[in-house]
Amino acid sequence: MTPHCPLPDRITTTVCMAHGGGGSMTASLIGEIFAPAFSNDYLNRRHDAATLPTTDCRTAFTTDTFVVSPIFFPGGNIGDLAVNGTVNDLLCAGATPRFLSCGFVIEKGFPIDDLRKIATTMAEAARVAEVEIVTGDTKVVERGRCDGVYINTSGIGYIPHGLDIDPGNIHPGDTVIITGTIGRHGMAVMSQREGLRFSSPITSDTASLCDIVGNLLDVVATPRVLRDPTRGGLSSTLNELAEASGVDIEIDESAVPVMPEVRSACELLGLDPLYVANEGVMLIIVDPADAAKALAAIRRSAHGADAAIIGRVAPTAEGRRPGVWVRMPLGNRRRLEMLSGEQLPRIC
Amino acid sequence: MTPHCPLPDRITTTVCMAHGGGGSMTASLIGEIFAPAFSNDYLNRRHDAATLPTTDCRTAFTTDTFVVSPIFFPGGNIGDLAVNGTVNDLLCAGATPRFLSCGFVIEKGFPIDDLRKIATTMAEAARVAEVEIVTGDTKVVERGRCDGVYINTSGIGYIPHGLDIDPGNIHPGDTVIITGTIGRHGMAVMSQREGLRFSSPITSDTASLCDIVGNLLDVVATPRVLRDPTRGGLSSTLNELAEASGVDIEIDESAVPVMPEVRSACELLGLDPLYVANEGVMLIIVDPADAAKALAAIRRSAHGADAAIIGRVAPTAEGRRPGVWVRMPLGNRRRLEMLSGEQLPRIC
Repeated sequence: MTPHCPLPDRITTTVCMAHGGGGSMTASLIGEIFAPAFSNDYLNRRHDAATLPTTDCRTAFTTDTFVVSPIFFPGGNIGDLAVNGTVNDLLCAGATPRFLSCGFVIEKGFPIDDLRKIATTMAEAARVAEVEIVTGDTKVVERGRCDGVYINTSGIGYIPHGLDIDPGNIHPGDTVIITGTIGRHGMAVMSQREGLRFSSPITSDTASLCDIVGNLLDVVATPRVLRDPTRGGLSSTLNELAEASGVDIEIDESAVPVMPEVRSACELLGLDPLYVANEGVMLIIVDPADAAKALAAIRRSAHGADAAIIGRVAPTAEGRRPGVWVRMPLGNRRRLEMLSGEQLPRIC
Repeated sequence: MTPHCPLPDRITTTVCMAHGGGGSMTASLIGEIFAPAFSNDYLNRRHDAATLPTTDCRTAFTTDTFVVSPIFFPGGNIGDLAVNGTVNDLLCAGATPRFLSCGFVIEKGFPIDDLRKIATTMAEAARVAEVEIVTGDTKVVERGRCDGVYINTSGIGYIPHGLDIDPGNIHPGDTVIITGTIGRHGMAVMSQREGLRFSSPITSDTASLCDIVGNLLDVVATPRVLRDPTRGGLSSTLNELAEASGVDIEIDESAVPVMPEVRSACELLGLDPLYVANEGVMLIIVDPADAAKALAAIRRSAHGADAAIIGRVAPTAEGRRPGVWVRMPLGNRRRLEMLSGEQLPRIC
């Protein structure tokens, strides 16, 4: 049972409506859970807005709300997912991630200990990615108006001079690289949700990929594009890029790295790994002249050991819409459509 | 009844899970609802992150998630509330609001027409505040995992050189100004929720206050502090400021402007207007030498006609904790505590 709403200025074992009321209970929750976990000079000023220093770089700005179910899954929880996801979106713009906001919507009755665990995980993920959580907001809603906790993170990063990452830069002949095995995050969450047991459990690959992008940019001044194939999986990201750049992308299915246990779980659930959500991998397209050194740089990065060249960009045939093609072992090819309908809800 | 999840690339009358799947249905929803409403050069590039231009100013960065219930209320809806709230938080940092993100969490079955109405309202509020919505995210959750729609907006603004708005600047003797009548937003939402009927219905005062802050900064180079007394009401904001600056704040209760219908509604519900949430008013503290010109500048602004001087900053008596005092008609005074517990849940 949820304790009744307590005396002011006391943290109880579960979140109550007053924790979102903007008064002393909200101040207690922030003071006891969020402020110590995220402590930094910007946040500690406790203003309505954080004041960030000047820079002569362009700013990348992104947002993502995380509603993953279950909140705790093998390999992570909604907290590191929320930090890593937004950090990776900034990296995809070529930016050095710097500052995050976080907005919590919490369901009444949510255990304070779980909230503390999530905040601690967020703080650790932020430390690893070298970003600071500088401003936040907390709302509480009644039971049945949320599913434990939802977290929005918005992020600011700085884009180095001269770097222009844009699908419009993609050309026929370019090389397509994936930085790791696909489908892990989606299948880790699904396995947990469906109660599937495997001899070696599938863990989420949630991670920030600063190391991969840093090492890549050391050897390739301007990669064509970086994208994290999250919801909708690799197929949807490839289709978005094909559409945005007006070219075809051809993938060698056998070259796409998939862990055996992920492949088995996909078969069991009737899913195609190309449509399963990823978190800790990035799709990178480079000039073919840069492909070998890009691959080597990625492979020597944290989370990059399984990187592989999986395909190439090709001109679109006259009169056809740009799209994604999977080249089969016998040389024929099939069109790979964007995810339609719903495959794996609430994966992030 | 909610229609079953439809064919790809079609918008139906209600939101279904596939609209949040990251595939073609998500693309349709964005393409048909959000992209046309918010259209601008940054958003239209459709990257994971928006790329913003360089500036030599400091950046203000803030976030707020809106979970107001009901979503549509007299005088506004969750959409303009979400834009105005974040714009006002940026203004409180002394910043010129520039860019917003928006993250939607939508409950399955939510009417598409309502979503369009909300997006249109957001776009109009953004136009009035001269900000652009440059990046976004959409998630869909099952029925009973949200309450229609929640919206996070995060915001970026630029702080003019030399401007330093900080509670630490508050000194005994300073003048306390409120820019309009208090309690309107809270009582508009509560009246709607409780089904109260008044001869003249109370409408929310949700508004962005760019005009007030612009006019103020034209005549007062460095106001001590600007704050929007939202959740927790005027009393909680005053207490936060007293605590942060280590001084007392004295309020003349009779000087605080309250509309008669708001006062009646408060009496009916047993509420103190000093604790009721506001949206379209700002608390401003200035050097007493600047008070008269500040008040005049605010009063000639949109939403500033009812501005009033409501109190002053005083030294804290030896050995007492800093706090807020209400001066009564006979000259005695009572301590005004921060909101404890919960008064009006889900007001923003």
